[in-house]
Amino acid sequence: MTDTTTTTPDLSGLTVEQKAALTSGESFWRTKAVGDVPSVMLTDGPHGLRKQREGGDHLGIGDSVPATCFPPAVALGSSWDVELVERVGTALGVESSIEDVAVILGPGINIKRSPLCGRNFEYLSEDPIVSGVLGAALVRGIQSQGVGASLKHFAANNQEDDRMRSSSDVDPRPLREIYLRGFQRVVEDAQPKTVMCSYNRINGVFASENRWLLTDVLRGEWGFEGLVVSDWGAVNDRVAALHAGLDLEMPGNGGQGDRALVAAVGDGSLDEDELDVSAARVARLAAGWAQTDRVEGPLDVEAHHALAREAASRSIVLLKNDEVDGAPLLPLRDDRSLAVIGAFAEKPRYQGAGSSMIHPTRLDDALTAIRAIAPQAAYAPGFSLAADTEPAETERLRQEAVAAAAAADVAVVFAGLPARLESEGYDRDDIELPADQLALVEAVVAANPRTVVVLSNGGVVRLPFAASVPAIVEGWLLGQAGGTATADVLFGAVNPSGKLTETVPLRIEDTPAFLNFPGEEGHVRYGEGIFVGYRWYDARALEVAYPFGHGLSYTTFAYGDATAAITAGGDIQVRVTVSNTGDRAGREVVQAYTSLPGSGVQRAPRELKGFASVELAPGESREVTVTIRREDLAYWHVRAERWVVEGGDYVVEVGASSRDVRTTATVAVTGDEVLLPLTRESSLGEVLAHPVAGPLVQQALAGMSDMMEGASAIMPEGVSMERMMASFPIGRIGMMAGGQVTDEMIDGLLAAANAPRG
Amino acid sequence: MTDTTTTTPDLSGLTVEQKAALTSGESFWRTKAVGDVPSVMLTDGPHGLRKQREGGDHLGIGDSVPATCFPPAVALGSSWDVELVERVGTALGVESSIEDVAVILGPGINIKRSPLCGRNFEYLSEDPIVSGVLGAALVRGIQSQGVGASLKHFAANNQEDDRMRSSSDVDPRPLREIYLRGFQRVVEDAQPKTVMCSYNRINGVFASENRWLLTDVLRGEWGFEGLVVSDWGAVNDRVAALHAGLDLEMPGNGGQGDRALVAAVGDGSLDEDELDVSAARVARLAAGWAQTDRVEGPLDVEAHHALAREAASRSIVLLKNDEVDGAPLLPLRDDRSLAVIGAFAEKPRYQGAGSSMIHPTRLDDALTAIRAIAPQAAYAPGFSLAADTEPAETERLRQEAVAAAAAADVAVVFAGLPARLESEGYDRDDIELPADQLALVEAVVAANPRTVVVLSNGGVVRLPFAASVPAIVEGWLLGQAGGTATADVLFGAVNPSGKLTETVPLRIEDTPAFLNFPGEEGHVRYGEGIFVGYRWYDARALEVAYPFGHGLSYTTFAYGDATAAITAGGDIQVRVTVSNTGDRAGREVVQAYTSLPGSGVQRAPRELKGFASVELAPGESREVTVTIRREDLAYWHVRAERWVVEGGDYVVEVGASSRDVRTTATVAVTGDEVLLPLTRESSLGEVLAHPVAGPLVQQALAGMSDMMEGASAIMPEGVSMERMMASFPIGRIGMMAGGQVTDEMIDGLLAAANAPRG
Repeated sequence: MTDTTTTTPDLSGLTVEQKAALTSGESFWRTKAVGDVPSVMLTDGPHGLRKQREGGDHLGIGDSVPATCFPPAVALGSSWDVELVERVGTALGVESSIEDVAVILGPGINIKRSPLCGRNFEYLSEDPIVSGVLGAALVRGIQSQGVGASLKHFAANNQEDDRMRSSSDVDPRPLREIYLRGFQRVVEDAQPKTVMCSYNRINGVFASENRWLLTDVLRGEWGFEGLVVSDWGAVNDRVAALHAGLDLEMPGNGGQGDRALVAAVGDGSLDEDELDVSAARVARLAAGWAQTDRVEGPLDVEAHHALAREAASRSIVLLKNDEVDGAPLLPLRDDRSLAVIGAFAEKPRYQGAGSSMIHPTRLDDALTAIRAIAPQAAYAPGFSLAADTEPAETERLRQEAVAAAAAADVAVVFAGLPARLESEGYDRDDIELPADQLALVEAVVAANPRTVVVLSNGGVVRLPFAASVPAIVEGWLLGQAGGTATADVLFGAVNPSGKLTETVPLRIEDTPAFLNFPGEEGHVRYGEGIFVGYRWYDARALEVAYPFGHGLSYTTFAYGDATAAITAGGDIQVRVTVSNTGDRAGREVVQAYTSLPGSGVQRAPRELKGFASVELAPGESREVTVTIRREDLAYWHVRAERWVVEGGDYVVEVGASSRDVRTTATVAVTGDEVLLPLTRESSLGEVLAHPVAGPLVQQALAGMSDMMEGASAIMPEGVSMERMMASFPIGRIGMMAGGQVTDEMIDGLLAAANAPRG
Repeated sequence: MTDTTTTTPDLSGLTVEQKAALTSGESFWRTKAVGDVPSVMLTDGPHGLRKQREGGDHLGIGDSVPATCFPPAVALGSSWDVELVERVGTALGVESSIEDVAVILGPGINIKRSPLCGRNFEYLSEDPIVSGVLGAALVRGIQSQGVGASLKHFAANNQEDDRMRSSSDVDPRPLREIYLRGFQRVVEDAQPKTVMCSYNRINGVFASENRWLLTDVLRGEWGFEGLVVSDWGAVNDRVAALHAGLDLEMPGNGGQGDRALVAAVGDGSLDEDELDVSAARVARLAAGWAQTDRVEGPLDVEAHHALAREAASRSIVLLKNDEVDGAPLLPLRDDRSLAVIGAFAEKPRYQGAGSSMIHPTRLDDALTAIRAIAPQAAYAPGFSLAADTEPAETERLRQEAVAAAAAADVAVVFAGLPARLESEGYDRDDIELPADQLALVEAVVAANPRTVVVLSNGGVVRLPFAASVPAIVEGWLLGQAGGTATADVLFGAVNPSGKLTETVPLRIEDTPAFLNFPGEEGHVRYGEGIFVGYRWYDARALEVAYPFGHGLSYTTFAYGDATAAITAGGDIQVRVTVSNTGDRAGREVVQAYTSLPGSGVQRAPRELKGFASVELAPGESREVTVTIRREDLAYWHVRAERWVVEGGDYVVEVGASSRDVRTTATVAVTGDEVLLPLTRESSLGEVLAHPVAGPLVQQALAGMSDMMEGASAIMPEGVSMERMMASFPIGRIGMMAGGQVTDEMIDGLLAAANAPRG
């Protein structure tokens, strides 16, 4: 997918110094103008444009121009809505173009390995397919306006603690199947103009100096054609980074990196051709932007705010909605008086701290939106968000709130995490809501059993009140229109359809990375392997508060029997009829998980492989098709070092969540052939199973049968000598035979086994 | 501890061929006689002598001469009785000497990483201190007779699956603190004459070719002076193995390895001096044995059987002993009729399958021993141990047993694992007792609530009946006198005092290595890190069936307040008064665990650091002293690559099990100094904490305070810019300052910081 419309500038006339200059920033946010190549701007995202005002500080975190703050990824991902996410991407592209920003730094698609990661609010999911599919949608949207996306943070950057040094020590299967799979999907499907390398090391090597990652895998295997930019300050050794494939160092640092490159070319330690390649990539990006038509301003603030509201309302996840007095507590009814409780109703928490903080064009709060519908609604803040609140004041706020709740028909408590607890740059210490809020919720529900809790949080929190509170709305961080969107859902103007893209655990001690996060002494071991998120809870048979994929609606859906068939292209097409069995229009996100009973490799009990959504009027039924790509069935074969689809009867589970499977189908998949040569280290069991060597060895063993029988005779009944011997490497078989089997005999056997077959 | 009594043979007259010949076996069990050096015999252990009869098979698993079968390590370890374990070691030495065996292949002290390991019955504990202390006692005992022990399997060999190829991929801290710590203890305390290298790889390198392991650590750090012998068939590349420090290859393989060594010396790829060193070690072992006085036979079979019985009765762990009819169900009373149920009562399972199988001198069964005390006891087998029992037969056996149980006052069910389920050479698939036995137990306890279950198993099993059965006796595999020992405990002739050296989990899904065992494709990731055994269950706050250290008595013990003080040598001396508050003499194993609140590194909530036992008459009190060695407080400092004792107030928990802490003391420990030089990668936080660099940088930052304040101002309240910045590497600080901080300035700062201090 080469961009054939861009005329790449001719760099042949440039000096080494000029080419080096192209490969680092002029300033915090701009590349350098060199020769014919213009300077272009890159700015933060990912859920809105954070373009710093002129004259800002060197750190680049000063005030920025107003832009629409869309729901951060934690929320947007919960929509599972590819079309909507692409429209948000398009809006980001439009705003970037109006502001002459060539590249917006997003999307971020790192896997939520632990709920403690301080930056989880910027990421989409604990699952690579969700991350990859929605990440690709964002890139398509952004780049539809000619603006470049920057897929980040590449790769295995799943924590903030010691992020600029720590090595993410990950084994090949989890690295490929969990941490890189989403990146691969986005690159192959949407070809982002840039990829941002992360700060951390991977298995000891800085991402910024990791040629295997930035060149062999990203370009060689996945066909990436764009430019690799460093995360801001991620370059450690500029020469090593350029050699690895890091084209553009950001931000500018006074030309220190450029001088190092020039010196390296001069002393022959860096090939000038490598510099040419990177310089050309930067030049091509800049020239491409210069040749791209800008979207004309001014920004349609209202239209984008409306989109932010639509996206926010689709992002809300209805976790629980029990019946009270014979009917579900939500949506709220006009004939019931209302007490709105909790400071977040008035002062919304709508985005996370750090480089992604947007200066919003507007900001809706839930209290105003609720009072627009229910003007008589009472309000009590219930708690203070200040860290230094006096106990007496906390008590007074709680009592005031409890009184308000007791006096109303229904209480809606807006609880959540104070901003200081989650931020780029550091991780959380726990998954607890503040103690005063937990005490408030318990007191309110004791005073009024008709209590709804609405949550504002960028990372999942423990919900100790899940049993006692009848209705819980997970509002995440919803962007600038979150307040109105929340009211839309609470009163039923919007029927919620969001689903969790990450598990809500019962306790931090249950989480997969618990004892391996955030590591120490510069290393973090990804000891849970491929068992990340729901894969862990399912494999360990752990109870959770709310499972991956879970989310309720104000209506109900029934599933027919699923069918699964292989397409001409080798994919699996899953079909299932879904019916709206309630009395209200709604949207269902249908999820398809696969497993392979009897697989030869470790697998999670189920893995999400596809999803689709369907909007249904009351009583309506429709057939939903979910396509599972053949490539998504593959596992990473560690010895063959490639993706392999194992053959067998795959079970496809179709349902409303990872733990609400409604229908199951089975489909036979033809596997990829993997024939590894036999070696001296091949086990007796492997040799016996080999088409050529097996019969030869079987014959040889027959001559030893007396001895084997003698040995078996003294072992307890049923102890398997065969099983004991099966793991014996063929190259050491001589030891068994007292030297009668020589090395030459074994080498001959292997040569025969590995000879090309006709 | 050089053995100065041995005259080392002079090898200077030997040819290269002769020296090479010394470094491998003549046959399966013997070294070669070369020049003046005699041939000596090494044979299997570890819980008895398995000396193969003359004319045995090449595999070495044929019939062996009768020897006393002491309780395998799984049982013996549960005694926590250093003196007893040393006496068993002495008896092993005596039997070896009588049979002219120079080296008995044991003890095995590998950590029980997963209950699934097929060879767990040969190992002592999930804890390295228990393994090290008891392993050292065995070595001392064996070697007191001039016989050599062989400490095995060195190292990180914690499974049977693919054991000859699989790489145990372990990070430095767990490798040192969990998997090597016990070996270090035994080597340093007891200097075994030989160490046996294991089959597996460690972090990719075969143990047999691992020079870091066999030479740098074993000899260089720990001061090992003996000989390293291969596990039988563990040598992959003989030249690489010799270079790594593997002196003796076993068994003989027709001289292939010897010829490879000669060739390597010839072509210069192996230094002849290295061959000389290994040949001399073999010669010294053989000559030492030739010069050692033999114990005169014949073996005192009765005395050793009595010791086996004593050891077995101390190894039994009373897991549960609830009151029935107002008194604990055990010990059994003379005035109650008895139904003995379960085939294991008649056909004891007393050792595990594989190379450690002893041909016992005698064999006691529990049924005979019980009937010697209670001649009227009824018996029903209850189940068949044959794998192919018909359902109708199973049903008949169960009904017969239930009828017997219903007709008696008390039922004692002997349940356990059939021998075929646990063996050297393969691992278990689960921790389940056979379904027919579980059904039998439930049926018996339903028919008679006065039911005792006695278990026979080499690895822990799930105990689904733990809530319904009032008394459970864990009998492990108890050796040849286990039957009488079991009767001793059941009837109270011996008051049980064994304690678990491994956790009994509720479910296999709860176990630390569950999703990382046994690995695949030649690698097993020790992903749980240092959190092995109780360290895991405590850190993850998981319920268990029975915790590490647990074991009941027929009497009760009270603990006074513990004190902890530092000795002149830097150790911690813990003192506590323990009282026998019951009406029967008994022995209590007092355990001391430490923790360091606020430690700078990851630690388990508690770690066993010492234990002691005390025998008390009814009403008696005694002060018990537990010494915690300073070196056992150390953790492995990954960056300094050495053991470091962290300073601080250590909490010492003293109690009857890891989850039955009775008293706590706190003691201030002075830490070791660790001053790592600052580098460009040192974080701003680390630099600020440095005595020299800190003030300099503080000054420089003061000039940036306006900028920092500006940045903080736009962040949400309480978001810490300082915390965000603290992890920034000093070498990349230039990026923050727009190039105003140069590399030269930073290098100057580091030079000042790292200059020697006066």
